[in-house]
Amino acid sequence: MAGLGKKVLIVYAHQEPKSFNGSLKDVAVAELGRQGCSITVSDLYAMDFEPRATRNDITGTLSNPETFSYGVEVYEAYKKAALSSDIVQEQKKVQEADLVIFQFPLYWFSVPAVLKGWMDRVLCQGFAFDLPGFYDDGFLKGKSAILSLTTGGTAEMYSKTGVSGDFRYFLWPLQGRTGTCWRGAGAPGQGSVPLCLPFDG
Amino acid sequence: MAGLGKKVLIVYAHQEPKSFNGSLKDVAVAELGRQGCSITVSDLYAMDFEPRATRNDITGTLSNPETFSYGVEVYEAYKKAALSSDIVQEQKKVQEADLVIFQFPLYWFSVPAVLKGWMDRVLCQGFAFDLPGFYDDGFLKGKSAILSLTTGGTAEMYSKTGVSGDFRYFLWPLQGRTGTCWRGAGAPGQGSVPLCLPFDG
Repeated sequence: MAGLGKKVLIVYAHQEPKSFNGSLKDVAVAELGRQGCSITVSDLYAMDFEPRATRNDITGTLSNPETFSYGVEVYEAYKKAALSSDIVQEQKKVQEADLVIFQFPLYWFSVPAVLKGWMDRVLCQGFAFDLPGFYDDGFLKGKSAILSLTTGGTAEMYSKTGVSGDFRYFLWPLQGRTGTCWRGAGAPGQGSVPLCLPFDG
Repeated sequence: MAGLGKKVLIVYAHQEPKSFNGSLKDVAVAELGRQGCSITVSDLYAMDFEPRATRNDITGTLSNPETFSYGVEVYEAYKKAALSSDIVQEQKKVQEADLVIFQFPLYWFSVPAVLKGWMDRVLCQGFAFDLPGFYDDGFLKGKSAILSLTTGGTAEMYSKTGVSGDFRYFLWPLQGRTGTCWRGAGAPGQGSVPLCLPFDG
């Protein structure tokens, strides 16, 4: 029971439960449960999670209704508890989690848009980081994160001499995202432990 | 009239017309128009463009209704002209364009989710590339692309010794996206000509 009492959030972005991504998620739920963890899954497609960062993310009046600045408004809304309920719910899940696993297929060398939208909207200033309060001082620094992804290409294609180039370069911005907020992650390229699987689906 | 008869598509992802991104888009429209280009703007937030890649992107029956594979289904749908109308409209704009300008603020070291969704959904297999038919042989190879982006951090923060690391690493996956389909772009890291502006908004 290595994980006894530990809380895990799986942010899962695949349309098909019977996919390889779906199986990886299911195996993680089963195995982590066996180890005594409690697990929450955010199944983004099933939730029809909103990826667009818009004025709707702020309830009530805007700080500056004349010129809309998403970053400014969301930061202010976070401080006065005026973010939309779907963002608040995801932030609560992240806050409670000891470990967050991102489970997704690589779309155009990055996360699918639905997961990018989760990152854009949930990991807002004030909640996940502040200035100061980022990289090694990010607000999620007590937590761990894993990028668990599948690819359409082979491992060879993503090697230094492969046609797509070194896979680590694709992971850099993703690690930047997690590294800004998560545990001891430092700058991009130094953060998290990606689990890369050369299979599609 | 250097651009006489040339067609330009601007894929624009900012919520606020009065933003710096909005101004950059407006200046591009004015200046390129002055040079004799005809310009089309896809204003993604104003269009409420759908970023999520789902079964709704395919009209009619699926190739395999038992297990949904987005990539497979969209590829088949492209070949039999059964993609959803919003995708078809954007593909038509890309097809007609000599130059595509992506205008956006950097969100988490990448494009905002709404623009990621445009890339995920519009640049599908069959339309933008095929296997074979990618990188130097991508189907948009007769066209040019420009990444025109703004950042919240200073240029120094994105330098090799800066806290966020070398900016070129963030651009790598973005250039991979354009490089797969666009002109003489080769592998990621070698593609397109990014215009980087160290301002937010």
